[in-house]
Amino acid sequence: MALDIVVIGSGAAGMTAASTAKAECPDANVMVFTEDEDVAYSPCAIPWGIEGKSEWEDIVMHTPEFYEKERGIKVYTKTRVDTVDDVAKTVTANGQTFSYDSLVIATGGRVFVPPIEGADLKNVFIVRTVRNGKDIKQALETAKNVVIGGAGVIGLELAESLNNMGKDVTVIEMMDQVIPRIADKDMADEIQSHLEERGIKFVMKAPIQSVNGDGSVRSVTAAGNEYPCDVMIFATGIRANLDIPKQLGFDVGILGALVVSPTLQPYKRGRLVQDIYVAGDLVQCESAIMPGATMSQLGSTAVKQGRVAGMNAVSEKKLLFGPVASPWVSVIGDKQISGTGLSLGLASWYGIDVATGKAKGLTRARYYPGGKELTVKVLADRTTHRIIGAQIIAGEEATGRIDWLTAAAINGMTAEDFLFRSENAYCPPTSMVKDVVISAVEDLCKNLGQ
Amino acid sequence: MALDIVVIGSGAAGMTAASTAKAECPDANVMVFTEDEDVAYSPCAIPWGIEGKSEWEDIVMHTPEFYEKERGIKVYTKTRVDTVDDVAKTVTANGQTFSYDSLVIATGGRVFVPPIEGADLKNVFIVRTVRNGKDIKQALETAKNVVIGGAGVIGLELAESLNNMGKDVTVIEMMDQVIPRIADKDMADEIQSHLEERGIKFVMKAPIQSVNGDGSVRSVTAAGNEYPCDVMIFATGIRANLDIPKQLGFDVGILGALVVSPTLQPYKRGRLVQDIYVAGDLVQCESAIMPGATMSQLGSTAVKQGRVAGMNAVSEKKLLFGPVASPWVSVIGDKQISGTGLSLGLASWYGIDVATGKAKGLTRARYYPGGKELTVKVLADRTTHRIIGAQIIAGEEATGRIDWLTAAAINGMTAEDFLFRSENAYCPPTSMVKDVVISAVEDLCKNLGQ
Repeated sequence: MALDIVVIGSGAAGMTAASTAKAECPDANVMVFTEDEDVAYSPCAIPWGIEGKSEWEDIVMHTPEFYEKERGIKVYTKTRVDTVDDVAKTVTANGQTFSYDSLVIATGGRVFVPPIEGADLKNVFIVRTVRNGKDIKQALETAKNVVIGGAGVIGLELAESLNNMGKDVTVIEMMDQVIPRIADKDMADEIQSHLEERGIKFVMKAPIQSVNGDGSVRSVTAAGNEYPCDVMIFATGIRANLDIPKQLGFDVGILGALVVSPTLQPYKRGRLVQDIYVAGDLVQCESAIMPGATMSQLGSTAVKQGRVAGMNAVSEKKLLFGPVASPWVSVIGDKQISGTGLSLGLASWYGIDVATGKAKGLTRARYYPGGKELTVKVLADRTTHRIIGAQIIAGEEATGRIDWLTAAAINGMTAEDFLFRSENAYCPPTSMVKDVVISAVEDLCKNLGQ
Repeated sequence: MALDIVVIGSGAAGMTAASTAKAECPDANVMVFTEDEDVAYSPCAIPWGIEGKSEWEDIVMHTPEFYEKERGIKVYTKTRVDTVDDVAKTVTANGQTFSYDSLVIATGGRVFVPPIEGADLKNVFIVRTVRNGKDIKQALETAKNVVIGGAGVIGLELAESLNNMGKDVTVIEMMDQVIPRIADKDMADEIQSHLEERGIKFVMKAPIQSVNGDGSVRSVTAAGNEYPCDVMIFATGIRANLDIPKQLGFDVGILGALVVSPTLQPYKRGRLVQDIYVAGDLVQCESAIMPGATMSQLGSTAVKQGRVAGMNAVSEKKLLFGPVASPWVSVIGDKQISGTGLSLGLASWYGIDVATGKAKGLTRARYYPGGKELTVKVLADRTTHRIIGAQIIAGEEATGRIDWLTAAAINGMTAEDFLFRSENAYCPPTSMVKDVVISAVEDLCKNLGQ
């Protein structure tokens, strides 16, 4: 008899799980339920969609019809799953009950909006779905002043897109730096200066106190000052959406997300749950850098988890999801910023004494036209000398370099070992003969007292 | 008393050694002897210099005057070292004798020109020095038909540059593929087709038999056919320049280059030579992929060795030079091609049974404008499943990806381990959510029977 596979959630994790399950087990009856109206798009693309760099129809990778026709996957859009019965192995949605042999919960996360007055006014938005993006784009048509709450990666990408559209953009951030938590202040300040030069205003160390207006938003109050505002967008971080897991009594970890086995099965009062797999922003991960819990709410992580969850939903040869270093990258203005592993902030959470190394150079040979500035910072544990993280700001080609440093960190390379064994490919149009990554590790070794 | 340090050779290895020695030991009297008229340039830049993309004066990084004034290093250009006495610890040049405490031999390599008739005709060149580049550029002014002997990376870069300059370019190659030895035929053929579309002609499996002309070259004969030729350039590979080491009786390895210790000291009849260090194209390396000898005649390797040799020349805290995977990259036309570790050809030399994986995709998210085609091929040992090499062809950003795969290979990651533990940084303008590198390793795992 054909397996019934139910997937709840149609983001990167959910759709990857559904596609993987169907590919591995073509006879399976794979159903996806989603409250969203669109499926299988990249929330990371919303800023580019608003700016018009990418088309909404391109951002949405496939339609539900495509999934049904081409992949044999049934997608129920705008459909809320009301209850899950993990004993009877059924879900109910739209008053109908569906049986499952395996269930994948990939309900993702929700934008955290601080509980302040006026957050529900007209023209106050979050940014998560294509629908959010379209609504923001429409509201912007008559807007002049835009306030973005939160200077994380999405907040900054949005700020840049809206600034390009000619809006007067103010970013309000609670912390004393942009991209808090995952970027170090010295690197973050370089990005902030770059955006300030482009005309974006920043209000730092300023918790948002209220959103003010009469029906529609007119201003935002933060740290005692009032900022005029026609459109307010909260980009204040993602919290795991635990509605269904909590209903089922699944165990939640110290970081407020689901504790899972390497097979991506959740736990219920300490016991592994059978026939249910979870993937995406609601999962608490293990760090590949230091023993301990970490969050990895990245599209790349969601896809990787979706593959494991989808495979395990239909197959006895269980795949395992490993620990994460969570490399990330963002293009903000003319700069790319990327990071991996631990920042100074995250390292202090683990109680690690950190040494750093930093180097500046170019992305191409000095004499080859078009080279861009490149700054590489590498962090090591001062006790073990292990590389525990890195950050890069570059005019181009930051991504491959951070993936390289990620590979070094997850393999436990020390700074000295990295210098001894690492090499960079070189030709004048794509790198310096000694890549800046290696120069940064040389500096790190000096600072480690070598 | 100040140390006397003599460096023979002014390429990447020699000048890095000199600068490192002087930086570590500012009191040292550092002297560089070179037959060349320019110092510290990148031979890789010659094609761009000929085309005019880079200026000759930019390619030459620093003048001898700069080294003397800014770094306190005395450079003797156009100066041949006639003899080295490793017992008296002296070198003689221009009839003068110089004492050394430590000697660095970094005399590099020489272009191998096959011993055929007519190779000494006018307008027949090799490509190695800035002087070669300038001479070629001048000869090209009145040339229409150019023949390039050898379809290695330098030959192809030259072919592309000369084609851009409007010359009629024919590349003649002895093997059945371009970039033999380090690229696999399927990847090489993609590059060859790309260049053929741009108008470059290829004659494959054709050893050059003679260069014909009366004073100046008029044609080239290969595999029985005659090709009209106003300028002929040999880009037929580099052989270690062992003039001085042979005079000193140093041991030469199976690959025709110097056997060295990890401190980069040569051997003489099996005994380590004291106070002499070698660096650059004349050194035989150890492979980081498989136990065994390998050559790594790359600028990046020369710089890395120069640092070790220069440091060890002045300091008792000896640095070690490690085994190499020799990642390489070249920009040829609109394509970048890069590789690392073993190709199929090199793997067969080690007797390895190889499994491969391949994936095609884009360098950016599908919906983000400007994404370029990206093909990644990964090779593993079928017995151990270890990743032993990779090759990439991409419209952009091949370098960082190959450095990433290099880090995986030198750390001994298996294909399965790579899938379990590797992550890629993602944002729509710089990668797909699952990078093509990871898709290629997924394909590899399938082909390994997982």
